[in-house]
Amino acid sequence: MMLEALREEIFHANLELVRRGLVLYTFGNVSGIARAEGLVVIKPSGVPYEEMRPSDLVVTDLDGRVVEGSLRPSSDLPTHLVLYRAFAGIGGVAHTHSRCATAWAQAGRDIPCLGTTHADYFHGAVPVSAPLSDSEIRGDYETATGAAIARRFEGRDPLEMPAALVIHHGPFTWGRSATEAAHIAVILEEVARVAFHTVALRPSASGIPDALLDRHFRRKHGPDAYYGQGAPDRP
Amino acid sequence: MMLEALREEIFHANLELVRRGLVLYTFGNVSGIARAEGLVVIKPSGVPYEEMRPSDLVVTDLDGRVVEGSLRPSSDLPTHLVLYRAFAGIGGVAHTHSRCATAWAQAGRDIPCLGTTHADYFHGAVPVSAPLSDSEIRGDYETATGAAIARRFEGRDPLEMPAALVIHHGPFTWGRSATEAAHIAVILEEVARVAFHTVALRPSASGIPDALLDRHFRRKHGPDAYYGQGAPDRP
Amino acid sequence: MMLEALREEIFHANLELVRRGLVLYTFGNVSGIARAEGLVVIKPSGVPYEEMRPSDLVVTDLDGRVVEGSLRPSSDLPTHLVLYRAFAGIGGVAHTHSRCATAWAQAGRDIPCLGTTHADYFHGAVPVSAPLSDSEIRGDYETATGAAIARRFEGRDPLEMPAALVIHHGPFTWGRSATEAAHIAVILEEVARVAFHTVALRPSASGIPDALLDRHFRRKHGPDAYYGQGAPDRP
Amino acid sequence: MMLEALREEIFHANLELVRRGLVLYTFGNVSGIARAEGLVVIKPSGVPYEEMRPSDLVVTDLDGRVVEGSLRPSSDLPTHLVLYRAFAGIGGVAHTHSRCATAWAQAGRDIPCLGTTHADYFHGAVPVSAPLSDSEIRGDYETATGAAIARRFEGRDPLEMPAALVIHHGPFTWGRSATEAAHIAVILEEVARVAFHTVALRPSASGIPDALLDRHFRRKHGPDAYYGQGAPDRP
Repeated sequence: MMLEALREEIFHANLELVRRGLVLYTFGNVSGIARAEGLVVIKPSGVPYEEMRPSDLVVTDLDGRVVEGSLRPSSDLPTHLVLYRAFAGIGGVAHTHSRCATAWAQAGRDIPCLGTTHADYFHGAVPVSAPLSDSEIRGDYETATGAAIARRFEGRDPLEMPAALVIHHGPFTWGRSATEAAHIAVILEEVARVAFHTVALRPSASGIPDALLDRHFRRKHGPDAYYGQGAPDRP
Repeated sequence: MMLEALREEIFHANLELVRRGLVLYTFGNVSGIARAEGLVVIKPSGVPYEEMRPSDLVVTDLDGRVVEGSLRPSSDLPTHLVLYRAFAGIGGVAHTHSRCATAWAQAGRDIPCLGTTHADYFHGAVPVSAPLSDSEIRGDYETATGAAIARRFEGRDPLEMPAALVIHHGPFTWGRSATEAAHIAVILEEVARVAFHTVALRPSASGIPDALLDRHFRRKHGPDAYYGQGAPDRP
Repeated sequence: MMLEALREEIFHANLELVRRGLVLYTFGNVSGIARAEGLVVIKPSGVPYEEMRPSDLVVTDLDGRVVEGSLRPSSDLPTHLVLYRAFAGIGGVAHTHSRCATAWAQAGRDIPCLGTTHADYFHGAVPVSAPLSDSEIRGDYETATGAAIARRFEGRDPLEMPAALVIHHGPFTWGRSATEAAHIAVILEEVARVAFHTVALRPSASGIPDALLDRHFRRKHGPDAYYGQGAPDRP
Repeated sequence: MMLEALREEIFHANLELVRRGLVLYTFGNVSGIARAEGLVVIKPSGVPYEEMRPSDLVVTDLDGRVVEGSLRPSSDLPTHLVLYRAFAGIGGVAHTHSRCATAWAQAGRDIPCLGTTHADYFHGAVPVSAPLSDSEIRGDYETATGAAIARRFEGRDPLEMPAALVIHHGPFTWGRSATEAAHIAVILEEVARVAFHTVALRPSASGIPDALLDRHFRRKHGPDAYYGQGAPDRP
């Protein structure tokens, strides 16, 4: 029942990636979690978005065991599961290979906070996770990928920085819901694109003043938010 | 009555930003002013364009007090109000985070006039406003943003340079009407994009000859304009 | 009668610029000539493409006197007229401010022939015309613009190089017909874009071997053409 | 009969290039081979995609003699034929002038494997073929083009590297079918674009660790593939 609503949300959050041009063919995936039930709903592996129906989504427990669905879950599921375990406050995770965010990830460069669009969503530079060792790559690779992200966020509030760039790979984003995670994926790509152009115009660009970063982030997040129509922390 | 026509115009001017790909989700805003009544019509804060109806637009006075409408006005309203007070001849203001104009703003670089497309609309380099002090950022931030633009234009005719880049933020544009302000926002993005490519091809590019700048600007503006079908100063 | 067919062709050639994303609002214009009658059909000045009907097109003689139509012709008409007089073999002219071709023009750089896509249409580097003097700019500016192009092509076959970049301005293209001129405008933008990326990847890139340039150009043009279905010189 | 199914597949594989924005006007071509019959189906030369019908496709033998169809085959047919003879395991070939892949080809640079998107499809850097001699260019040029690709792949499994960049020209891709060849053409353009941005952000970027390359390539190809729904080696 509640799972049906979640399944519907995950379906639409996945399609949002298509609508915004973030994914090609079967690239990318979004998942959401029902915390009370300990269940995760995720896109099936290698299914084209055009053919996907809500009933194709896969439900697993937090150990990745399939509970509902006849298809295999996205091969990135173990990465999602690590994030759900590490970040208690999140309700959804999105992964894409969107162009500009992926270019920053491939270049191994954090995306510096170069403007207020960035500051509206991300409290500081979007960080790149550390490279995996060869044995991590050859072992439980997707779990190790999640662990590298989680290590990068030790001591940080993941809702103040709802994105990471996996080095040589691409972005993962998250939020209080799958809808928010997909929304952040779209924003991240936009921010990455404008940052790309900015550093081309000024290679030494490094970041906006702290006061401006705080002002914009707090305009949209937390108790003093005044952007929007009163819903706290609307993304 | 006259306000109804203005409301309709502001509605369409906001949607023009969507149609031309300048805004994502709830980004951006356009306003217009009824000078005789001293009333401003502006997009509500944080409302997605797809859901917005003309009746969602907010009417305020020049001090920002809501006169009509049940939603909060755009959080950038105070910036618009400063511009209406400082620039007596303008009837509309538009604000976007469009990609290339924002990249120039984030890089803190004026957009030099590198060609006739630019000269057709802007009489010289599009200027970046000065950074705000930390106390301005922490205080009445949106008003200070408008004041920084107004200071940058002291002694200039704002209709000869209908745009400014707010440093670390993005462009504001204006015109004799909201329709014109939105139109200029679209042109500015195009000009910023071509300028980006131009300086990549020739980093030392600095500006076209004054005679060419004047010729093109005057072809479209002022008493000797001969572009178009006779409407003076059509943008 | 024959003029009606030409008018119809010019109408569609203008809309091709819109369909391919080469023009914004009222930017750009295409014309065609009826050589026997000495009449030119061209887009009216400052009319948005969405509103333009075939009857809005303007017919002039080779001195620019309006023969048919109630609107003013494109302000670039004098440039077109110079090209028709200088290049006896052409039947159409197109002018755009398309992004990448304009960037090369603004940078004052010829587009070198960096690949076979270029060589299929242009026999060598696409040249930039010389800057105008201030008195040319202040005088009969649009005619001087055409003259600068014509001077750049002295001793060359304009059908082997159906394009020029007007410095600080943008591209003009031409062909045996207006349809071909618009087609070349689209190809030129594509070639300019790929060349932009190529020189970013290899700044020293200068041009393909002469044998390859000739092979590709002759594959599509002249008596030995073997591309397409037998129509000689199809673009 | 079996040929009819192939003809239908080739028709749709050609249109996939249009749908994904890889081709302009008559650019590009896809072919497929019926190995048992020794017959190749290919796009006709110089026919716009919008007008092409399945019956316009041309059927030839492996020497390029037309067996079915009233139109001339694509002028690139001899290149396709060399690839079918050299690479026994392939069933389809695609050729485009897609923007970013062509820029790398024009720059004469292999596309290094800079991320997992690349590694999912290509086992290493996508190679540029050697330039042709002037006599090869003046002789049987299209055959020599294919031979240059084949020489570049001596000792390599073409299904582990289903693409080559022909220097000064553009990409050829292949796969077990024409559908797969067109699919790879789309992916190659995406990979080339992200690589372009990556080297702009980090000019020294050279390639991901071998372990990561292998992990991703084997996740999708060969006996240990675990991406997708169990179809071996789905692209």
